[in-house]
Amino acid sequence: MTGASEPIRDLAHIGHAELLTPTPEESLRFFVDLFGMEIEARDQRSVYLRGWGDYQRYSLKLTESELPGIGHMAIRAQSPAALERRAAAIERTGLGTGWIDGDHGHGSAYRFTDPDGHLMELYYDADRYVPPENLRPALRNVPQRYVGRGAAVKRLDHVNLLARDVAPNRRFAQEQLGFRVYEQIVLDDGREAGAWMSLTIAAHELIYVADHAGANGRLHHLAFFVDTREEVLRAADLMLDADVPIEAAPSKHAIAQGMFLYVYEPGGNRVEVTTGTHFIYDPAYEPVVWTEAERARGQAWGVRTIETFHTYGTPDISGKATGPPIAPTSRVPGSAIG
Amino acid sequence: MTGASEPIRDLAHIGHAELLTPTPEESLRFFVDLFGMEIEARDQRSVYLRGWGDYQRYSLKLTESELPGIGHMAIRAQSPAALERRAAAIERTGLGTGWIDGDHGHGSAYRFTDPDGHLMELYYDADRYVPPENLRPALRNVPQRYVGRGAAVKRLDHVNLLARDVAPNRRFAQEQLGFRVYEQIVLDDGREAGAWMSLTIAAHELIYVADHAGANGRLHHLAFFVDTREEVLRAADLMLDADVPIEAAPSKHAIAQGMFLYVYEPGGNRVEVTTGTHFIYDPAYEPVVWTEAERARGQAWGVRTIETFHTYGTPDISGKATGPPIAPTSRVPGSAIG
Amino acid sequence: MTGASEPIRDLAHIGHAELLTPTPEESLRFFVDLFGMEIEARDQRSVYLRGWGDYQRYSLKLTESELPGIGHMAIRAQSPAALERRAAAIERTGLGTGWIDGDHGHGSAYRFTDPDGHLMELYYDADRYVPPENLRPALRNVPQRYVGRGAAVKRLDHVNLLARDVAPNRRFAQEQLGFRVYEQIVLDDGREAGAWMSLTIAAHELIYVADHAGANGRLHHLAFFVDTREEVLRAADLMLDADVPIEAAPSKHAIAQGMFLYVYEPGGNRVEVTTGTHFIYDPAYEPVVWTEAERARGQAWGVRTIETFHTYGTPDISGKATGPPIAPTSRVPGSAIG
Amino acid sequence: MTGASEPIRDLAHIGHAELLTPTPEESLRFFVDLFGMEIEARDQRSVYLRGWGDYQRYSLKLTESELPGIGHMAIRAQSPAALERRAAAIERTGLGTGWIDGDHGHGSAYRFTDPDGHLMELYYDADRYVPPENLRPALRNVPQRYVGRGAAVKRLDHVNLLARDVAPNRRFAQEQLGFRVYEQIVLDDGREAGAWMSLTIAAHELIYVADHAGANGRLHHLAFFVDTREEVLRAADLMLDADVPIEAAPSKHAIAQGMFLYVYEPGGNRVEVTTGTHFIYDPAYEPVVWTEAERARGQAWGVRTIETFHTYGTPDISGKATGPPIAPTSRVPGSAIG
Repeated sequence: MTGASEPIRDLAHIGHAELLTPTPEESLRFFVDLFGMEIEARDQRSVYLRGWGDYQRYSLKLTESELPGIGHMAIRAQSPAALERRAAAIERTGLGTGWIDGDHGHGSAYRFTDPDGHLMELYYDADRYVPPENLRPALRNVPQRYVGRGAAVKRLDHVNLLARDVAPNRRFAQEQLGFRVYEQIVLDDGREAGAWMSLTIAAHELIYVADHAGANGRLHHLAFFVDTREEVLRAADLMLDADVPIEAAPSKHAIAQGMFLYVYEPGGNRVEVTTGTHFIYDPAYEPVVWTEAERARGQAWGVRTIETFHTYGTPDISGKATGPPIAPTSRVPGSAIG
Repeated sequence: MTGASEPIRDLAHIGHAELLTPTPEESLRFFVDLFGMEIEARDQRSVYLRGWGDYQRYSLKLTESELPGIGHMAIRAQSPAALERRAAAIERTGLGTGWIDGDHGHGSAYRFTDPDGHLMELYYDADRYVPPENLRPALRNVPQRYVGRGAAVKRLDHVNLLARDVAPNRRFAQEQLGFRVYEQIVLDDGREAGAWMSLTIAAHELIYVADHAGANGRLHHLAFFVDTREEVLRAADLMLDADVPIEAAPSKHAIAQGMFLYVYEPGGNRVEVTTGTHFIYDPAYEPVVWTEAERARGQAWGVRTIETFHTYGTPDISGKATGPPIAPTSRVPGSAIG
Repeated sequence: MTGASEPIRDLAHIGHAELLTPTPEESLRFFVDLFGMEIEARDQRSVYLRGWGDYQRYSLKLTESELPGIGHMAIRAQSPAALERRAAAIERTGLGTGWIDGDHGHGSAYRFTDPDGHLMELYYDADRYVPPENLRPALRNVPQRYVGRGAAVKRLDHVNLLARDVAPNRRFAQEQLGFRVYEQIVLDDGREAGAWMSLTIAAHELIYVADHAGANGRLHHLAFFVDTREEVLRAADLMLDADVPIEAAPSKHAIAQGMFLYVYEPGGNRVEVTTGTHFIYDPAYEPVVWTEAERARGQAWGVRTIETFHTYGTPDISGKATGPPIAPTSRVPGSAIG
Repeated sequence: MTGASEPIRDLAHIGHAELLTPTPEESLRFFVDLFGMEIEARDQRSVYLRGWGDYQRYSLKLTESELPGIGHMAIRAQSPAALERRAAAIERTGLGTGWIDGDHGHGSAYRFTDPDGHLMELYYDADRYVPPENLRPALRNVPQRYVGRGAAVKRLDHVNLLARDVAPNRRFAQEQLGFRVYEQIVLDDGREAGAWMSLTIAAHELIYVADHAGANGRLHHLAFFVDTREEVLRAADLMLDADVPIEAAPSKHAIAQGMFLYVYEPGGNRVEVTTGTHFIYDPAYEPVVWTEAERARGQAWGVRTIETFHTYGTPDISGKATGPPIAPTSRVPGSAIG
């Protein structure tokens, strides 16, 4: 019997995220040609994309939309019973919106919103990916052939959501979904500016950061995993030559110790190529709480975080309908010499 | 309420392992100078060693002994209640040997043996590592300063045990300890030759492989983690120049997809430097079962597994009291020209 | 004034090599899809291929032929005068075969054979590569966009030729072409088994190794450069999944310290993906001479060199017209359990 | 016979540089503990340090001095005759200061200054390094055991000098020393802001950049080589935890394509950990000339060059006697939240 005080372990991991794009053709080419994902299914307004390491059929649903942003985020439960438990618990919070029949690749799902209004769903039944002959791998313990196209992302790694008020969303994720909080930023006035959470030993799967524009339901970024730091550097080489706007060149995060590269996909959404092996094995882990002064030191190696990283999210609410805040790296004019 | 059919999630991870060595001074120098570990505590017959990423005080207890091998392996429980549950369950199997008061860095522990006779213990109370000033890291989310000495292993990664009969040990680990089986080798005659198991999404934490000598309680190897494949290559460069016998040069395992380097520490025990990001997120993962024919293909990139890898374990029972089966790489005579 | 004893510095580097293949379509797909080269020109029997880092139009000429092997190897001179000097010197040796008008991408060339009969040429006039719009790089100091397809080789790195008798070929390369000898294998009976030579600080550009079959004019392998060791590992992952026969998995050469991966292209020729930064800056460098006993220790980290590496060359003279001596890695049957 | 118009090839490479430090003990600990160099010799005011890949006895002479900066830079000639030729040529320019008897590890040297006043010398006779037993490598083609301490730099890679007027120094290096110019920055008004030059295929060995303070004889930085990009990242991890001020975190230069990490050694001198395999094989290479607008785009992946990189050199002439312009990374206060 699980006592009341024992942690909730009903959810396994974030299964997929739906990204909205006003430029579906360009976004699709970006994810296929430059991120190296495979098209697993299509319907009228969406394309379902997978990394070579996804054990399910896809981890990214790309959907045509007037504005960019996140459509929904889906979390896989540990079991049918676990799914029922979480659905019932969320139902009691009043944030539930009910069951749907499912989608490509997975069965019935319970939908709800987080306190900030991001649409989420829980599901258990899921197809295991069966590769076609041309994508059959040599070894049976990997789901798909490694073809190494573009950045060759392996799978969706984490979802970073903007929230008008971080604290209630962080509590909801902890208390209703069973996320463990590994790191936080708490401002000098006590407000929470960010929360890094996970269902596993991985250093983060779901992140909330404060939306400085005071909006609701927006996306900061989706992050996709590669196996090595060298692959993050290689991705930057690729993005540079492909004229993709690089918001933040490869470096190492202080929080969660991940290697990062941030770029804008053509629809205007920020996406990250990431890797890292900062695992949290401690069952009694106390969240690391960062102060304002500490965060001001920048990233791990002292790189200052670019301003847009703190101000831009999708959909953009600055008056421009779509489009990344910066031009491709190789096209930026300037005045400094060096 | 946890139903009877739901998986056991009471144990968090392997906390430490005790390695026996007949050459304690030389072994200590190896782990400090070449593996880059720090001495955290000492007593009369043991030295307690840590990697820079260990959140507990140590993950390796090195103990003087007439013969090399494994002393015991310790697993941390998720909670005090979880510890009680597992202790009670093991007690019922008849393999329990009772509670001990604890050791450096952790509190009371329940001791038992696996069916093959390896000594194990479960514990929950553990000291969180507090670095001395000279090992204080710049960032508060890592436990210790990265000084980069030698191979600079981060932490204990997995324990590979030889067993006269793999199957009952695999079942015990699953049913009593809650390990999930991710990969197996099953021979054409149905006998199990190996089982790769984990308490987390990491591809393996505990491995049993068949002891071809038919002995009990022996060690195949302890593996220590580094963050990147490049660091495994760098470790090989270091071992070569330090005259450490390299049993298997860096390459990639087919099973679990880990990058490996196998060497012998001076006491005669096989130890591995490893990395990998093959994570098992699927809550309904079906173990990958490898056949004899498949395993005969060698490692991932086709490297043939060296013969000693299948025959040597500690303690050695071939008649030689101690010592690795091969001389340092740079000292091996031969006849081929290359 | 240049004294008679000063070294010849008339030749700059190996500009391209011509590879013969009985399976031109399959070989072309291999070099384009898996090695990531671009097609720069074609004519009736040949396709001219370039790596993303080649400053000239191509470094590989792939030519249809009844048997695999090397067609010719071309070396660029430092200047027109230097070209004249070397042509005149070779003419005096009796090994010259005269001037040709040139080929795609370069002007008139002086042709000759080395003592073993490999066809070579010297040239100076060469087109600098001008990328089409779709391959224009972001930065003007690299010749071509990095698209990262397959192993994404950067350029031809070195040519390894089999020779019935190494010594006279090594001397010819030194005395007539100005190659510096950096490493050698000399057998206990005094015969030379290999010579590693370069025109630059790079550890090797031209290698001769003894042809154990006693044949003439054969190819051991062509090697293509990538920037990092991690890319060599990544190339192995790609080759494995593409069912390309891996002759030797990634490891580190003792001689010249290069990281290697050896595979067979579909025409049966051995090709290497390599990297390394073992530079020879010493103007008075004394060649490192390896003995039989030393070479028997295997590669740098102790990996035993696979038997075919010492016996197979192209064209094959064992009676089989074409085809690599081993099947794709993932298809090899066997009997060991590992 | 060498014609008058043929390039000068008399000099082989930069053999060593002398760095001045007002804090000799702290600087020595930095180069030994953090850069991983070995002490090869000492005298009253200097310590001679080597990287594990230096074929000569040392590449860094560290000398106590009132102010930081560069003492001298030494270039090895290709031969005794080549040394005589260059000395005679420099003598004719009026910049020669005559012969000295030599120093630890090398014989007589011809001293001179470049037009900006940096002291330089040419030499030929040099001791080949003979390692003591504890530093003897396993393989005879590397000069020293790889012990992997700290960043484990391999050798001095390049010297970057500040000059009041770049053009005459660039011309002197070309015309008297035989350096080839591979890249340049030329401002819109025609002034040269930087020149990247080399004696070999390596992308740079000697660099001049404009001294914005209008001073003479100052040092921008010394750069030390490591073999892989991953090692540059690892060096940043080490410097962070060792409280070394990181001026510029690892990223990739647009010019010369090198990976970089810039830090300050305790004496106040900027030093770089670098790697790269951008080789210039073209004997007719036309220098890449960068415009003001292009340089304003920042480094390869768009990272803005930090202001101090353009303003700080040693000795500092801003009024402070010594000390780096920035505090250790982990100690910087700030105000942004990230």
